[in-house]
Amino acid sequence: MSESATATAAVREAGQKGTPEAGRSLLSGVSLPAAAIFAPALEHNLAWMQRFAEAHGAHLAPHGKTTMTPELFRRQCEAGAWGITLATAPQCRAAFAHGVERLLLANQLVGEANMVIVAGLIEAGADFYCVVDSEANAQALGRFFAARKLRLKVLIELGVEGGRTGCRNQAQVIALAQLIGAESALQLAGMEGYEGVVHGDDPVTAIRAYAGLLVETAQRLHADGLIEVDEPIVTASGSAWYDLVAEAFDAAQLRERFTPVLRPGCYVVHDHGIYREAQRGVLARRADLHEGLLPALEVFAQVQSLPEPGLAIVALGKRDIGFDQLPEPLRRYREGGDASDTLTVEGWTLTKLMDQHAFIRLPEGADDVQVGDIVAFGASHPCLTFDKWRRVCLVDDGLNVSEVLETAF
Amino acid sequence: MSESATATAAVREAGQKGTPEAGRSLLSGVSLPAAAIFAPALEHNLAWMQRFAEAHGAHLAPHGKTTMTPELFRRQCEAGAWGITLATAPQCRAAFAHGVERLLLANQLVGEANMVIVAGLIEAGADFYCVVDSEANAQALGRFFAARKLRLKVLIELGVEGGRTGCRNQAQVIALAQLIGAESALQLAGMEGYEGVVHGDDPVTAIRAYAGLLVETAQRLHADGLIEVDEPIVTASGSAWYDLVAEAFDAAQLRERFTPVLRPGCYVVHDHGIYREAQRGVLARRADLHEGLLPALEVFAQVQSLPEPGLAIVALGKRDIGFDQLPEPLRRYREGGDASDTLTVEGWTLTKLMDQHAFIRLPEGADDVQVGDIVAFGASHPCLTFDKWRRVCLVDDGLNVSEVLETAF
Repeated sequence: MSESATATAAVREAGQKGTPEAGRSLLSGVSLPAAAIFAPALEHNLAWMQRFAEAHGAHLAPHGKTTMTPELFRRQCEAGAWGITLATAPQCRAAFAHGVERLLLANQLVGEANMVIVAGLIEAGADFYCVVDSEANAQALGRFFAARKLRLKVLIELGVEGGRTGCRNQAQVIALAQLIGAESALQLAGMEGYEGVVHGDDPVTAIRAYAGLLVETAQRLHADGLIEVDEPIVTASGSAWYDLVAEAFDAAQLRERFTPVLRPGCYVVHDHGIYREAQRGVLARRADLHEGLLPALEVFAQVQSLPEPGLAIVALGKRDIGFDQLPEPLRRYREGGDASDTLTVEGWTLTKLMDQHAFIRLPEGADDVQVGDIVAFGASHPCLTFDKWRRVCLVDDGLNVSEVLETAF
Repeated sequence: MSESATATAAVREAGQKGTPEAGRSLLSGVSLPAAAIFAPALEHNLAWMQRFAEAHGAHLAPHGKTTMTPELFRRQCEAGAWGITLATAPQCRAAFAHGVERLLLANQLVGEANMVIVAGLIEAGADFYCVVDSEANAQALGRFFAARKLRLKVLIELGVEGGRTGCRNQAQVIALAQLIGAESALQLAGMEGYEGVVHGDDPVTAIRAYAGLLVETAQRLHADGLIEVDEPIVTASGSAWYDLVAEAFDAAQLRERFTPVLRPGCYVVHDHGIYREAQRGVLARRADLHEGLLPALEVFAQVQSLPEPGLAIVALGKRDIGFDQLPEPLRRYREGGDASDTLTVEGWTLTKLMDQHAFIRLPEGADDVQVGDIVAFGASHPCLTFDKWRRVCLVDDGLNVSEVLETAF
């Protein structure tokens, strides 16, 4: 091969976005922008939430849609997770393809093509559960899985008036349970809810009431003989109010005759926004919890231009980081420097994010900023940062890449 | 292999998000949500913009960051494009790996790891151009490429006060051109600008003035002997004001001694939001253009729950579609039905988008909606829909998938 042909072949073999490679540092050798997870904070969070669930006699089925990173699913399962929760049939397939055997689809399974995916998972041995909230959906599932000669385990979803999906009251739940009982291809395995869509002036009280009703409804279905499995599943919780759900499970002593399952997702890397705020609420409610979750996900990008006094343009955009809230500059480094030599970003304000550019308003006297400086950014809501990346760098506190994790969106 | 092992292997082989397959229909057989490009509208847009550029004596280097879909790059080049514009070094590498040989990085090339990527592209034979706007960046590039014994072709960026990147005036441009002339590894090949960040009470006048200054500055550099190539490049334009840029190129008769290059990106699939609006502006300014661009990109998703009167929850979220503006329901179909049997979405309002769910407020009397109904959605700003997908379905007007296009984000 000619030299140019060799070079061409090398280019064609290289990945797309970024070139993260284990053994390199985010300060030299890794194409930026790049997303990074700090391994020590990740380990802390994995252990923290597992311990929290166990202390309440609950199982953990972390919501995998947050990261869609199979290597993180593996670590969550290794840490003791009961299964992985997912949001769509293709997500379930991706998790199963990477070794997750118990899958909780915390959504209605709609559409024949999605049912085909799930039938394939069940045939391949997955322990699969999904959620129903309507007779129409239950009947469609019953027809499809009967024709495939498979039995589908379902959970009835309890919602709230003005909320998202889910039956609006206990009477609807019971009617749906009876209908499911008449569908031979369906097996009612418990109840599901999501307290994150419960709103009100006093969310803590409203969520406690909702979690209590969810538990009570499951107990009632069980007492009425409408649930067809031993130790029925009762599951709820996102990453903001999991403590209230766990307390409701615990108060009803579900651990004795039920399978209580918590499903937080964002906890695994936490965040620098809404979940940090929510965690303050958890710690304020729970004096027994001494140390909370740690933000583990950051995006590193470089100053690209300093076109006029007080303005830095950074090569970071909506393609690279979640923007439910504008990202926050956390620290700055010189390219090629040492991770312990952090430079200030005090007074830096991210004022605007375009597809591939961030506008930073610099404070007076910020004279040491250079084109090429590397800035670490934190964001709110990790789900919408993960989905920007096909590869995420796992780094130590010295910013050395120990592993490159592939996402499976 | 046992039956279950065969099933497992099949699951492991399947893709992640969606299972689009050529020969299926979006109304049956394709896992939804799925993103779809209508082939007839795409063909129309490809030809339309190529014709527009040629009518102004300009070349077209469509901005590839919009779609990052190599198969679309191929069609753009086949339609006559001079090259493909990209926003980052890894994007350039992805385009080159898929056969694009002329690459215009319409951004500063910052960071040694990104320079390494570009050096690899040049060594492999790419005709590569990037943008500079500072002495610091020019010197860093000069050092790096001199050490690699390569010559880098650069364009000086002209920006505007209060804008994004780019020199703020002609004096800065000339000083930078002189500095580039002194860097043996750099070759000044022309001027670059982006009129999309020019603001003001009267944007048309402001953009005309900006485009005029860009052209004049290029002519001055050329006259002063500061540009080192024959037929220097002058390039600008996004997908909103390309007509004004083209007119400035044309008015100065750039086609005779320069290489004028337009770089719209979104035109290729157009949109149902800001670019549709911008296109109305183009057509209002240009009585000679009879038919404009056509929106070609939609996302199809299914009604998942009808939990209370007046509310439909659709399995479509921020993971699936751009949300600079809330997406718009366009049409509805019955699953398994015929594409010509469209059902109404009149009065439907998307009120809220979560990661995986859309909330639709239904009008009074919308009694025919069913769980499983398929809804086509349009969005504003196609860039932030493309980056949600690894595969996009190319469909005919009958919603049959003719081809599955892979993205390379």
